[in-house]
Amino acid sequence: MDPTPPRNNAVTVADVARMAGVSKATAARVLGGYGTVSDRVREAVTLAARNLNYRPNELARSMTTGRSGTIGVVVGDIENPFFSLAVRGITDIARQAGFTVILTNSGENTETEKAAIRALLAKRVDGLIVSPAMESDVDHLEEAIRSGCPMVLLDRGSRTLGVDTVVADDGHAAEDITRRLIAGGHRRIAYLTACDTPDHRFRLPSDISTGSVRRRIEGFLRACHEAGLSGMEDWVRLGALTPAETQRIVTAMLTDKHAPTAIIASDSVIGLDVFKICRDRGIDIPRDLSLVSFHDADWTSVTTPPVTVVRQPVYQLGEKAAKLLVERLNGNGGPASRVVLKTELVERASVADIPAEQMSEARQEKV
Amino acid sequence: MDPTPPRNNAVTVADVARMAGVSKATAARVLGGYGTVSDRVREAVTLAARNLNYRPNELARSMTTGRSGTIGVVVGDIENPFFSLAVRGITDIARQAGFTVILTNSGENTETEKAAIRALLAKRVDGLIVSPAMESDVDHLEEAIRSGCPMVLLDRGSRTLGVDTVVADDGHAAEDITRRLIAGGHRRIAYLTACDTPDHRFRLPSDISTGSVRRRIEGFLRACHEAGLSGMEDWVRLGALTPAETQRIVTAMLTDKHAPTAIIASDSVIGLDVFKICRDRGIDIPRDLSLVSFHDADWTSVTTPPVTVVRQPVYQLGEKAAKLLVERLNGNGGPASRVVLKTELVERASVADIPAEQMSEARQEKV
Repeated sequence: MDPTPPRNNAVTVADVARMAGVSKATAARVLGGYGTVSDRVREAVTLAARNLNYRPNELARSMTTGRSGTIGVVVGDIENPFFSLAVRGITDIARQAGFTVILTNSGENTETEKAAIRALLAKRVDGLIVSPAMESDVDHLEEAIRSGCPMVLLDRGSRTLGVDTVVADDGHAAEDITRRLIAGGHRRIAYLTACDTPDHRFRLPSDISTGSVRRRIEGFLRACHEAGLSGMEDWVRLGALTPAETQRIVTAMLTDKHAPTAIIASDSVIGLDVFKICRDRGIDIPRDLSLVSFHDADWTSVTTPPVTVVRQPVYQLGEKAAKLLVERLNGNGGPASRVVLKTELVERASVADIPAEQMSEARQEKV
Repeated sequence: MDPTPPRNNAVTVADVARMAGVSKATAARVLGGYGTVSDRVREAVTLAARNLNYRPNELARSMTTGRSGTIGVVVGDIENPFFSLAVRGITDIARQAGFTVILTNSGENTETEKAAIRALLAKRVDGLIVSPAMESDVDHLEEAIRSGCPMVLLDRGSRTLGVDTVVADDGHAAEDITRRLIAGGHRRIAYLTACDTPDHRFRLPSDISTGSVRRRIEGFLRACHEAGLSGMEDWVRLGALTPAETQRIVTAMLTDKHAPTAIIASDSVIGLDVFKICRDRGIDIPRDLSLVSFHDADWTSVTTPPVTVVRQPVYQLGEKAAKLLVERLNGNGGPASRVVLKTELVERASVADIPAEQMSEARQEKV
């Protein structure tokens, strides 16, 4: 079989009408399922359509209805298990509602995100679900909304956009886990994230333009302040964007005189890297270092020790975002809603309580 | 901000022309980047387009050019790390080539796959990348190809379709790992897969309609026959479609008088389930049971013991499939090619050599 027959052989309604021996209007009525025709005509047209391998042209229909039947999705990286699970939630709901999903990756880069949004709008998607790479740079999203394209923000909100938003309860989750670490005697607790600032230094939560991460850092700092720990901003480390960069940051921390006794990893990709670095350096978790990771990724429950995680309702985040978007597309004109889904702390065995002074010695011997 | 302004406020070329005080044809020339106009006119039109927030309508352009700029992708399950990584490869190449990707899941169900293909064709995708759920049921794919839609098969081939195909060297990989297990004294080696037959029983490789899995089973049986092991068809177990079903199958095998001494898991989702079941039942890997999994998923290197895997070039499978499709879309009319990418056996610590008689006793005591 010739693998590339010419594309312009698409069969039209006129072709079907000709073969069935009816007018184009009659054929269109049968194929579109509207109006009334005799059984004999319906059969003739249906048979002709089957013989000619006729397919309705949704592109043409889109031009008439102004609806393309597609939802555009922009995530940070489909390879990250967090996003692939959220996208599964989105596609399941979209399919049920009769929409297909156009998927794009931003690579957590705002320029790529802008290009993706432009491409999706040019394709006349009916709506958008976006995990913005940077909350401080959303002019392109605002423009998309202004042009009439409904949008739902996934996992990351925006104070300025005023659209439907579905996030997890990240702030409280971070606060909760930080409190437990402090109660267990930890004082040197590092918070490690991929998010970055131009000079790779953290000063204020407002520097962090990814909403979910900012809320986590705010939660972390809130719990620290509450416990009377000061200067904990210094323990927020940014820029864990690749395994090599994570390795550099973690190694620097662990070989420092004031090494952390606990690390909170902002996502499971970073958590896995930290776990591997500790294994390779012979650092015993949790004896030498306690580890907590966001996202209950599949690897976290089968390591030795299994890793304590913040279980986010990832599939449900995608599902809810798609449901809200479908409601908008079906005419819901109500005010924008902000849905916050509960997280759950799953305590496994990667966190140990240890007196601060003992930990300090142990770490310095070890590294 | 009203989150749902009406969608029909899309700005047209006529609106831009009116504001710029030029004819529609002139505005179209400027906005389309063709023909010649004076600098003054170009500036006026560009300014008007910006002020009106004009966006080119690619849908309209598609109607004229017959190209939609989209690639339709149908995978088994985006949540499976294998597919999410392959899709990342596809989207990276597609973006570079100026295409966007419409993603659909078949859930490994042929009826869902048929509906997905129908929806994608109705959207006039320029081409398709498909991992067919069943090779024995590809009439809908043949029809799509006949209608003029170029297609590339990903990870799973088809003898009948005659289209570009990108697969991994699964047969040799399975043969290779089976040989090693046999050389290590294993005789009772189970091959566990999600693929199923109507009565959940395996008889012949030709019963298996998923190409990559069939090739693996063929490789497994080839190595067994070569070593003079007969009746190994009985050790091919089908239907590990959900964690619950995998648990049922594996528990039945492990509690049997003739329990396997080694399990080959056909994908990393099943491999992870087997690992968890062994851990929960106190079965020591590799002392009591050797485990090999297809796909070098992230969890496999951080377990105790780390798991021996067949590393498939997953990202490259997606990348190559997208490259072949883009070449077809750019007019390559050559014969269909079948690309076979090399796999790699990554030996970790989940396989042990053990005398068959000793193993047999150990297993019966344990379970």
